[in-house]
Amino acid sequence: MHSVGLVEPNNLTFAHPPHEFSLESGRHLGPINIRYETYGTLNKKKSNAVLILHAFSGDAHAAGWHSRQEKTPGWWDAMIGPGKAFDTDRYFVICSNVLGGCQGSTGPASINPDTQKPYGLRFPVITVNDMVRVQKTLIEQLKIPSLLAVAGGSMGGMQALEWSVLYPEIVRASIVLGATARLTPQGIAFNKVGRNAIESDPCWNKGDYYKGKTPAAGLAIARMVGHITYLSDQSMSKKFGRRLRARERYGFDLSEEFEVESYLQHQGDKFVERFDANSYLYITKAMDYFDLGARYGSLEAAFSRTNTKFLIVSYSSDWLYPSYQSKEIVCALMRNQKDVSYVSIDCPYGHDSFLLETERQTDIIRSFLENVRD
Amino acid sequence: MHSVGLVEPNNLTFAHPPHEFSLESGRHLGPINIRYETYGTLNKKKSNAVLILHAFSGDAHAAGWHSRQEKTPGWWDAMIGPGKAFDTDRYFVICSNVLGGCQGSTGPASINPDTQKPYGLRFPVITVNDMVRVQKTLIEQLKIPSLLAVAGGSMGGMQALEWSVLYPEIVRASIVLGATARLTPQGIAFNKVGRNAIESDPCWNKGDYYKGKTPAAGLAIARMVGHITYLSDQSMSKKFGRRLRARERYGFDLSEEFEVESYLQHQGDKFVERFDANSYLYITKAMDYFDLGARYGSLEAAFSRTNTKFLIVSYSSDWLYPSYQSKEIVCALMRNQKDVSYVSIDCPYGHDSFLLETERQTDIIRSFLENVRD
Repeated sequence: MHSVGLVEPNNLTFAHPPHEFSLESGRHLGPINIRYETYGTLNKKKSNAVLILHAFSGDAHAAGWHSRQEKTPGWWDAMIGPGKAFDTDRYFVICSNVLGGCQGSTGPASINPDTQKPYGLRFPVITVNDMVRVQKTLIEQLKIPSLLAVAGGSMGGMQALEWSVLYPEIVRASIVLGATARLTPQGIAFNKVGRNAIESDPCWNKGDYYKGKTPAAGLAIARMVGHITYLSDQSMSKKFGRRLRARERYGFDLSEEFEVESYLQHQGDKFVERFDANSYLYITKAMDYFDLGARYGSLEAAFSRTNTKFLIVSYSSDWLYPSYQSKEIVCALMRNQKDVSYVSIDCPYGHDSFLLETERQTDIIRSFLENVRD
Repeated sequence: MHSVGLVEPNNLTFAHPPHEFSLESGRHLGPINIRYETYGTLNKKKSNAVLILHAFSGDAHAAGWHSRQEKTPGWWDAMIGPGKAFDTDRYFVICSNVLGGCQGSTGPASINPDTQKPYGLRFPVITVNDMVRVQKTLIEQLKIPSLLAVAGGSMGGMQALEWSVLYPEIVRASIVLGATARLTPQGIAFNKVGRNAIESDPCWNKGDYYKGKTPAAGLAIARMVGHITYLSDQSMSKKFGRRLRARERYGFDLSEEFEVESYLQHQGDKFVERFDANSYLYITKAMDYFDLGARYGSLEAAFSRTNTKFLIVSYSSDWLYPSYQSKEIVCALMRNQKDVSYVSIDCPYGHDSFLLETERQTDIIRSFLENVRD
């Protein structure tokens, strides 16, 4: 049990022998490592655990600092800690890196037991369902019988939905922020362009680049495309406008002149330092595949299985996972007469809102969690 | 004067000696070729000429067929022809390929008189203002004293705005469809990603690829990013949904499975056959630079110079050049008490609407043109 001030990541290795974990595709995978962190203390009844689910490029480091040298705290530090939305004085908070990821959990950069080399493209295609079933094994290993709540934004929200439908007996509440029950064709299209940029980089070498130069240029382009979709026209206009970076007037050359261009390039370059290009391929594919309703015939049928209490939040300026998709979830839950709260937050930050709208989210989530049965 | 059934492109060479044409950057360019086509007949008064201005990837071939072998007619054939919006029984319609382009007009793939090799990156950065001033030279060469109208969508609309402000004494009416007086930072960001994809392709070779392999992979990625921005979430959902292409169920591999993916790839591959990667760099840069108000202090000040009659059209689902930008143009014109009509078309096709909403546009444009003084 770690304090929020300085957390040490746990590196859990599943006890599964190689090839044991059965994936949605029918293939098998193992051994599986899952990197996770915890904040706060599990109560005696073991009834106060909250599982935080990260978005596409997130990791297990959701809050606090690993060392005093770290420049920024965990990715959702504004929401997790004493007195915060996920109050670590009350809740035992867990966050793990997803299966297929590259920040401590097993993914395409991990060693393939068959070859003793990184998997690369031999890594099996994984799904949001696989991610969640691996998390379930983690919860079992921690001997936690049920979760007070699962919570996440974007792909984290997809996982929260999946948890609620797959393990309704374990999940008491589900907090789904800026998410969808199925990715739009526009979302699939943007993911496809990102994958294409990576695969077109000669350094990608069909996924076999772990000993040499990595496909940094392709991965940076993929990230830049993605990053634009996380913001909004409005937030970009406010943040950058048409300001030039180092010039007062146009230079009439092809160099990077506008502030928004350098910002994007910087985001691309920074991302390359921390993310594996093959993980980009696999995790975006998992998002493309996510279609909760399709598996059960309809979203309404999917939700008929759950007894979870839901909080659905959407953001007016999110055009990647637009509000109407959250409303579809809410409607499908209501038609099942499930316990659902829905909040539409009017804000300019686009899809990234769930990372930025901390004040309003804190009020909403705090009062929601207070009403979840213990 | 060509018939609409079969048009032969004219290849105009300006009489300018090398290096004569003075660009906005201060640099000089020449000789300049401008490819253009005409449809209909110039009347005796020379008062019925309409200049059509093409969008980013368009060309001079706006209507009709060059040969019976051609699969599709010119890019705006639905709008230009006998009895159509730009009625060739009444108007003499002209369309030229922009400066910097690659479909017959001088651009980075043209021969640099100094080296006798393609310009590549030695081609000077050009602007929308330069494009328009070159078009003016074409109009003079055709001995046309004034234009009944200039008309275009997207970057074509930028040119129409520029014409109206630069040559108010010549342009009687200006039809501006799905355009903006200045590109948003989001638009600049998408353009930057496209340029980055081209420049990251090793075949690009700093723009010097005309003798070898072209940067086809990078250019295809750039086009795919662009193409997504021309559509809308709604139109993609309707056209593709989440349908798989050649499979009934997920294949659990990394291949292209969704219809929207193959469609995009096809668009990328097709584009590479007809477009020059360096032209992509130069023309997107010209769009980034376009800021009509900045040059005159404000958009209101810019429009104080014009006496043109305006028709501004925006499309509800266009998120790349959003409606609020058209409304800014309309407001700035109204504050100047200029003659402006504004129509907001509610349709699902996104930025591409100006190419697709032909029926409603025809009614609007026809009645607008009937009220332009002869």
